[in-house]
Amino acid sequence: MKLLIAIVQDKDASRLSNDFIENDIRATRLSTTGGFLKSGNTTFMIGIDEERIDEVLSLIRESSHTRQQFMTPPVNLDAQLDSTSSYPIEVQVGGATVFVVPVEQFHQF
Amino acid sequence: MKLLIAIVQDKDASRLSNDFIENDIRATRLSTTGGFLKSGNTTFMIGIDEERIDEVLSLIRESSHTRQQFMTPPVNLDAQLDSTSSYPIEVQVGGATVFVVPVEQFHQF
Amino acid sequence: MKLLIAIVQDKDASRLSNDFIENDIRATRLSTTGGFLKSGNTTFMIGIDEERIDEVLSLIRESSHTRQQFMTPPVNLDAQLDSTSSYPIEVQVGGATVFVVPVEQFHQF
Repeated sequence: MKLLIAIVQDKDASRLSNDFIENDIRATRLSTTGGFLKSGNTTFMIGIDEERIDEVLSLIRESSHTRQQFMTPPVNLDAQLDSTSSYPIEVQVGGATVFVVPVEQFHQF
Repeated sequence: MKLLIAIVQDKDASRLSNDFIENDIRATRLSTTGGFLKSGNTTFMIGIDEERIDEVLSLIRESSHTRQQFMTPPVNLDAQLDSTSSYPIEVQVGGATVFVVPVEQFHQF
Repeated sequence: MKLLIAIVQDKDASRLSNDFIENDIRATRLSTTGGFLKSGNTTFMIGIDEERIDEVLSLIRESSHTRQQFMTPPVNLDAQLDSTSSYPIEVQVGGATVFVVPVEQFHQF
């Protein structure tokens, strides 16, 4: 048993959630926020047997595409920077980050 | 020191939270969503010394009961399935899932 | 690669979030609730190379100050206790709790 912590873009989360259900993978969903652009993302916690890790990783990879998107950067608190930096800019978003964490005990009550 | 990640039903969370306080167990609470029926649940993150793991597991087991409940399944996106599947159905809910994860360093500032 | 799970006070979270951005540390932010006084706090999940752990810990320590604050305790469900316990009390808040958790696999898609 391993714990997979997968951070994906909000737009990819619903499809991925359905993929998990179809493949009988129990995932717990957290609403999270990314560091850099403060955009919303979704974190899934998935407890899975070791032999199914690659299957889960494949589902995540297929559902999470990098893409171009316009975003408004967070309000700039540094007065030295140019005020135009609060206009929308095109950035590459998407993709997923996955941590596989060891589990010493697993219980279901 | 271990990190316990406990996912319980929303209905059981308040009682369990009080149990933790009464037993001087520090727990951080996250609002989460379950995979299958998209019902709300609550995840507790608990840092605990190894010799108290069984005590925490007992509290979780006592507070989390499986029970029958009516739920409306999520909207069905697969047109081939019968539309009646969006009516409430009786399901077994409750119970808890607990992961015990190793901790290499623990700091309090 | 390690996974740092850092629980800090809400008031310290924005500054710390900016510190992470300035130092090119990717952090995912969760809105969480503390156990004892039910006050809001913020949990950061940070994937970081082993040699940068001390740098991240220093940023967390510098941003998280213990301080005195008035708080209203949660409604007391135990009728035997005095009703005055629901008045605001002065408590020491702040500080941070950090768990460093091993990571067996790390993927970015």
